[in-house]
Amino acid sequence: MVTNIERPSKAVLAGFDGMGVATVHEAQGRKGLLASTMRPIYRPIHVAGSAVTCEVAPGDNWMIHVAVEQCQPGDVLVVAPTSECDGGYFGDLLATSLVARGVKGLVIDAGVRDVAVLTEMGFPVWSKVIFSEGTVKETLGNVNTPIVCAGVEIHPGDVIVADDDGVVVVSRAEAESVLEACRERETDEEEKRKRLASGELSLDIYSMRERLKAKGLKYVDSLDPD
Amino acid sequence: MVTNIERPSKAVLAGFDGMGVATVHEAQGRKGLLASTMRPIYRPIHVAGSAVTCEVAPGDNWMIHVAVEQCQPGDVLVVAPTSECDGGYFGDLLATSLVARGVKGLVIDAGVRDVAVLTEMGFPVWSKVIFSEGTVKETLGNVNTPIVCAGVEIHPGDVIVADDDGVVVVSRAEAESVLEACRERETDEEEKRKRLASGELSLDIYSMRERLKAKGLKYVDSLDPD
Amino acid sequence: MVTNIERPSKAVLAGFDGMGVATVHEAQGRKGLLASTMRPIYRPIHVAGSAVTCEVAPGDNWMIHVAVEQCQPGDVLVVAPTSECDGGYFGDLLATSLVARGVKGLVIDAGVRDVAVLTEMGFPVWSKVIFSEGTVKETLGNVNTPIVCAGVEIHPGDVIVADDDGVVVVSRAEAESVLEACRERETDEEEKRKRLASGELSLDIYSMRERLKAKGLKYVDSLDPD
Amino acid sequence: MVTNIERPSKAVLAGFDGMGVATVHEAQGRKGLLASTMRPIYRPIHVAGSAVTCEVAPGDNWMIHVAVEQCQPGDVLVVAPTSECDGGYFGDLLATSLVARGVKGLVIDAGVRDVAVLTEMGFPVWSKVIFSEGTVKETLGNVNTPIVCAGVEIHPGDVIVADDDGVVVVSRAEAESVLEACRERETDEEEKRKRLASGELSLDIYSMRERLKAKGLKYVDSLDPD
Amino acid sequence: MVTNIERPSKAVLAGFDGMGVATVHEAQGRKGLLASTMRPIYRPIHVAGSAVTCEVAPGDNWMIHVAVEQCQPGDVLVVAPTSECDGGYFGDLLATSLVARGVKGLVIDAGVRDVAVLTEMGFPVWSKVIFSEGTVKETLGNVNTPIVCAGVEIHPGDVIVADDDGVVVVSRAEAESVLEACRERETDEEEKRKRLASGELSLDIYSMRERLKAKGLKYVDSLDPD
Amino acid sequence: MVTNIERPSKAVLAGFDGMGVATVHEAQGRKGLLASTMRPIYRPIHVAGSAVTCEVAPGDNWMIHVAVEQCQPGDVLVVAPTSECDGGYFGDLLATSLVARGVKGLVIDAGVRDVAVLTEMGFPVWSKVIFSEGTVKETLGNVNTPIVCAGVEIHPGDVIVADDDGVVVVSRAEAESVLEACRERETDEEEKRKRLASGELSLDIYSMRERLKAKGLKYVDSLDPD
Repeated sequence: MVTNIERPSKAVLAGFDGMGVATVHEAQGRKGLLASTMRPIYRPIHVAGSAVTCEVAPGDNWMIHVAVEQCQPGDVLVVAPTSECDGGYFGDLLATSLVARGVKGLVIDAGVRDVAVLTEMGFPVWSKVIFSEGTVKETLGNVNTPIVCAGVEIHPGDVIVADDDGVVVVSRAEAESVLEACRERETDEEEKRKRLASGELSLDIYSMRERLKAKGLKYVDSLDPD
Repeated sequence: MVTNIERPSKAVLAGFDGMGVATVHEAQGRKGLLASTMRPIYRPIHVAGSAVTCEVAPGDNWMIHVAVEQCQPGDVLVVAPTSECDGGYFGDLLATSLVARGVKGLVIDAGVRDVAVLTEMGFPVWSKVIFSEGTVKETLGNVNTPIVCAGVEIHPGDVIVADDDGVVVVSRAEAESVLEACRERETDEEEKRKRLASGELSLDIYSMRERLKAKGLKYVDSLDPD
Repeated sequence: MVTNIERPSKAVLAGFDGMGVATVHEAQGRKGLLASTMRPIYRPIHVAGSAVTCEVAPGDNWMIHVAVEQCQPGDVLVVAPTSECDGGYFGDLLATSLVARGVKGLVIDAGVRDVAVLTEMGFPVWSKVIFSEGTVKETLGNVNTPIVCAGVEIHPGDVIVADDDGVVVVSRAEAESVLEACRERETDEEEKRKRLASGELSLDIYSMRERLKAKGLKYVDSLDPD
Repeated sequence: MVTNIERPSKAVLAGFDGMGVATVHEAQGRKGLLASTMRPIYRPIHVAGSAVTCEVAPGDNWMIHVAVEQCQPGDVLVVAPTSECDGGYFGDLLATSLVARGVKGLVIDAGVRDVAVLTEMGFPVWSKVIFSEGTVKETLGNVNTPIVCAGVEIHPGDVIVADDDGVVVVSRAEAESVLEACRERETDEEEKRKRLASGELSLDIYSMRERLKAKGLKYVDSLDPD
Repeated sequence: MVTNIERPSKAVLAGFDGMGVATVHEAQGRKGLLASTMRPIYRPIHVAGSAVTCEVAPGDNWMIHVAVEQCQPGDVLVVAPTSECDGGYFGDLLATSLVARGVKGLVIDAGVRDVAVLTEMGFPVWSKVIFSEGTVKETLGNVNTPIVCAGVEIHPGDVIVADDDGVVVVSRAEAESVLEACRERETDEEEKRKRLASGELSLDIYSMRERLKAKGLKYVDSLDPD
Repeated sequence: MVTNIERPSKAVLAGFDGMGVATVHEAQGRKGLLASTMRPIYRPIHVAGSAVTCEVAPGDNWMIHVAVEQCQPGDVLVVAPTSECDGGYFGDLLATSLVARGVKGLVIDAGVRDVAVLTEMGFPVWSKVIFSEGTVKETLGNVNTPIVCAGVEIHPGDVIVADDDGVVVVSRAEAESVLEACRERETDEEEKRKRLASGELSLDIYSMRERLKAKGLKYVDSLDPD
């Protein structure tokens, strides 16, 4: 149980608001992407916040209750079991408690339940599975220590960005520079989007034709194969 | 083929209307939950009804046609193949027939098709997969005998409750007492929800702090690690 | 890279507009169905068009850029990697380019990203997974050669029909006769639907009772088991 | 915890010794087969015994220790978690204890560890996974009550037969008649095997040609397609 | 049902004897590899033969009996269901019949049973799963028409090569040239193997250092990070 | 590319020789276990060594060639792709090169090929899948930086222990104390094994009866249920 973790500045977190997961993933050099098994419980959906990490035992959600107290406005709770587990660790009561603390969403490499209510509440959750199986409160775990969640290491205070595509993590140390790279990428893509929409081809925009030819690409006319 | 099965009373079935799967699962001692592979074809969704059970051969939906005749208003049809199969056993024609008989929904540990039409009709279905593969009509099976569906034994006349979270079954014999336990749980949760929404912590509401300390939970301040 | 492929007539493609996947699959003798792992990114959804095929290396979307140039209004782009891969081959920029060329949708046995934007655009996509993982542009593949996509062989110019249920392919040579069979099937089902809705049983409509009896089906009254 | 369960006679259990899983499954009308996810830890392997059932909480092997005391010579221990779990519930120490009590093997719908030692000991185990993840001893479960294991209901005292193909259960009440049917099937197959080995075709042995023709099977010579 | 299919020459088939799957896959330009779900029932294992193809209905092995008659010495039987199915289509009786006809092995994208006996017989089988579930004999399919098996199109008379790594198919038309390429690859690898065994590095053998440097590879000494 | 990493002492590595994965996992407080998807290519099998880490692009094994040069006698090469991939990254040529450098084994969260030859060579490999699909040499990655492999973070110089059960990692800093704990655990288990073999029950050895009773465990005699 670690208290008083460092968090990114509010300005940085605000900068990631609305930023897409694909953009962030590309902007930081194609890393930090959680496994594709992490799916949102409703769509469209988006969140950007500061990670509070929580390691739980399989089938045991006790430490989530402990983690709630460590959460502040703007946080995203990130939960990973020490062993693969599909139990329904989280439901609408815990969500109510997190909302009361200003928490923006949940990322959990396990099961979640009460998803109809969570959807009505508009509380964003990414989970491995939707499942009601109850959990116990018997075993200690860790809060705000580094954890591996859905194949990626996450430290407390890292930036979590999640949307319809999935979840990506940005280390706190790199958050500011990654945000800058995201903005550049967005500007660049906006310009490309206009050219593509007007009918220009990516083969020309990215000057691919020569390299394709060098690699040996050949065109055969099916109506005139000779 | 068993006819004239016993069903729960209408009052009991009505009582389960709108009751959440997680609530029912907890109220009956954390049993009866079908595997998380059983997913609804649309959301939000809810059904509570009396099970008509139907065991089919892999890739063969003949017995579903036989089962339809045994269905009454308020029933939920529960179908399980004798061996794992993803075939599209059920589509909008069978749904039309079930609706004509007052059947409230379908739970099938296999594939379903025509889901756009089923969604438009508002006919609730939980299935393992959405798949159009056709099935044949060659092999007999059983109707209204006990079956194992998605890992759980279901008897004809058991209560089926299903929602966005999945599917749970309550044995007919226990339906009344489980319903009572559900209501108590709902009352209790409503009160907890209010306290949590006002910012009270579950650590305090459930008096967890002492037991956590006894188990050895320690708090370390990251800014003052000594 | 094959250019100038033959396509079905506009009249045939128009005929498949709105035709359901289950109907097409049945009408052509229960073949041509892509694996159930191919799921639409939003619902309801429907497309019918002429296949442009594209074979890509794992984690490499270069050939999709090449394929775009071969697409015409009314086409559906069909992409399959040479080895199983979950990379995010396709996003909103490529979709913008395809829309500019009149392409009606994408079928890809791999990952897709930017699905929130694709959904807003109303650009239909069926994919194996939603995942943002970036791809490279290093390896050549094939465009408009026969490919195996999600377990089914697809030739350029084949008809692709896809909806909430999944994806089915009709060979160009058989497209006209299959369309005719689809229309007959729809007429027949419309009549059956009315009879079923009025309460008639499929056991009677399809005259199944005699054959069930011949196979040995027995009815046991649970209230009078002797 | 139920004690003093009834078991099949020693003669019946001895009769199932060496009987193949496929034979038993067919002889009892194609039922009782556990899911194909249940795999032996070594091969060749075979066991036939009387089931002691044990229901455990996810990640908690406490009740296995309780179940050991209920085991007698000739038993097979059958363990199922109440929710899907891959934890390593069972290792060489528990196996040593079971061997000391004359137990013939283990069937567990979860994880097992120390498989190198178990293989050396020649202690037969069928499990869903091989995994070392430790389990706790916190939650009660049931011993010798009916359980669902790998999709099939098993009662204490049922006959378990397992081999390289997987696991099948025979209800105690039917054990004697199923054994008789197995023996008939074996005799019949032995005769068929000789005829097939001598080159006779199953098309002729089972007189399939006429029925195939009636269903419409046609032969086309690829060298003379007209 | 197509009879009298063309097969590769005996010399070509003999040439593939003992040739590894990886070698064949590489030698023909990295194509033809069946999905990694196709696993051998024992190891070590190897087969090379001429494909007899057989398309079956889900849960129905009737057409395998029909296919047996079309098999000749040196053939490998290749079976694929029209829809995904785990049923136990094939056991020791069918294997006995195939052995009597000189068939060298089986590749099946479904389930197989009696694997202990098949292993004792030394009859090579690659399957998706080991499972005893019985199949019926009700529905016609195709023999010796092109099929898609485990994601790859296979024509009757194609060369099947399979070993511990899995299964690869070579089209009949390309068999001779692919065999030649395999032999060249083997000679080349034998020489590389010797150089690597003597301690030479692949970085030098393949002259990779310059291209790595051009791509930007940098070496950092962990003991002298400046 | 980091060179000159620190490694555990030879004495510590020798101490882990023959130590079981379950023992190490328990001795270090139930952490460090790679996912159960990591399976050995043959059995029995065991390795203990110092990790050289290698991060590769999906479908690209170039960096493995770079990593080979960094390996020393006693090392275990640990490879993880940046995105999930089943390609056949590693075969007998790379194994020959590693053996020439004294490397003791390979752990790879992807595919491996030539497993028949690797088995003959006795070169230990744990992989996610056996698959021959070829990989390219186009994209840079990292060698000897921290990676996440099969869900667990691994640093260069960490101790890798792997056997029939799977793979576990011990951080270099904790290696000595974990080894000590392993030895204590082995001594303790040896004594327990003797008592269990003699028929003593774990219920008594671990004094569980009282705690079970306190939790409410009740015994019901099935022959005298009143």
